[in-house]
Amino acid sequence: MPTFRIELFEGRSQEKKRELVEALTKETCRVLECDPGSVDIILIDVKREHWATGGVLWSERS
Amino acid sequence: MPTFRIELFEGRSQEKKRELVEALTKETCRVLECDPGSVDIILIDVKREHWATGGVLWSERS
Amino acid sequence: MPTFRIELFEGRSQEKKRELVEALTKETCRVLECDPGSVDIILIDVKREHWATGGVLWSERS
Amino acid sequence: MPTFRIELFEGRSQEKKRELVEALTKETCRVLECDPGSVDIILIDVKREHWATGGVLWSERS
Amino acid sequence: MPTFRIELFEGRSQEKKRELVEALTKETCRVLECDPGSVDIILIDVKREHWATGGVLWSERS
Amino acid sequence: MPTFRIELFEGRSQEKKRELVEALTKETCRVLECDPGSVDIILIDVKREHWATGGVLWSERS
Repeated sequence: MPTFRIELFEGRSQEKKRELVEALTKETCRVLECDPGSVDIILIDVKREHWATGGVLWSERS
Repeated sequence: MPTFRIELFEGRSQEKKRELVEALTKETCRVLECDPGSVDIILIDVKREHWATGGVLWSERS
Repeated sequence: MPTFRIELFEGRSQEKKRELVEALTKETCRVLECDPGSVDIILIDVKREHWATGGVLWSERS
Repeated sequence: MPTFRIELFEGRSQEKKRELVEALTKETCRVLECDPGSVDIILIDVKREHWATGGVLWSERS
Repeated sequence: MPTFRIELFEGRSQEKKRELVEALTKETCRVLECDPGSVDIILIDVKREHWATGGVLWSERS
Repeated sequence: MPTFRIELFEGRSQEKKRELVEALTKETCRVLECDPGSVDIILIDVKREHWATGGVLWSERS
């Protein structure tokens, strides 16, 4: 029953997202020997102005 | 101090959401014998194109 | 596909937890008209020394 | 490697958010004696109609 | 900056976990064309008595 | 109603954790002009063998 929550910067195409969840599910099932239907993945788009590293928002980096 | 985070597909009416948080809070307080004011519930709308099961996004199921 | 993540203070009995997930699932399905099998609930025990309100850890309240 | 996830009501200005992540990162590094670059903070805007306390959504309080 | 949070049943070996994070990171970088160093993965072991599907805890299924 | 969830490596002393939540709450209230009682902070200890960066678990770095 692995459940993924993946936070990533917004802006990826729907095609990339489709490819990503396919690849992650396939690898997870291969390694953990689990059924694909038991793998849930939720993608969470995060805006650059909502993510800071080192105290600086990514929207404010040059 | 139970705190809920509930991910669900977007598209539910505000009336349904209101009814849901009322019912969940009531049941939680009944079972755990806690004060309603200590129950926080955050609803998180998830788009079908951001949720995959079995490696397939829900937006792409027919 | 509602997925719950519930943080609560540790110390509840397994019987209370069983009763809680039953009640929450039942109410969710009644309100959202969804299939019970689509409701996942993850309970997360939190120690009082890991939860602060108003800047004070609950383990340090008298 | 502290990673923060902060849910707050939507409506704060970008300036306030910038000031907040700066202050939180600074204090975290001071107390934990860690490198600023190791601190990630993700801000999550929550609508008042998606957050309930005591079974009542904040959008419905007068 | 993808950050993963993966909830899975406890009981996987450390070797499986190592293999899993390697494979997931590799696939993520291949698809999103990002730097491996930007991928963080946090694994969260969940006990069967803390995860319910359909209102039934996994520890109570026969 | 800011609610924090902070994942950090396990091993910090309880004194450090107390100091951290005090400092974070104080700064949050100063910047956002909110009431201390509305700030909840949950600390989540993560083992080095459960956190990977760049595909390598922190427990396996030399």
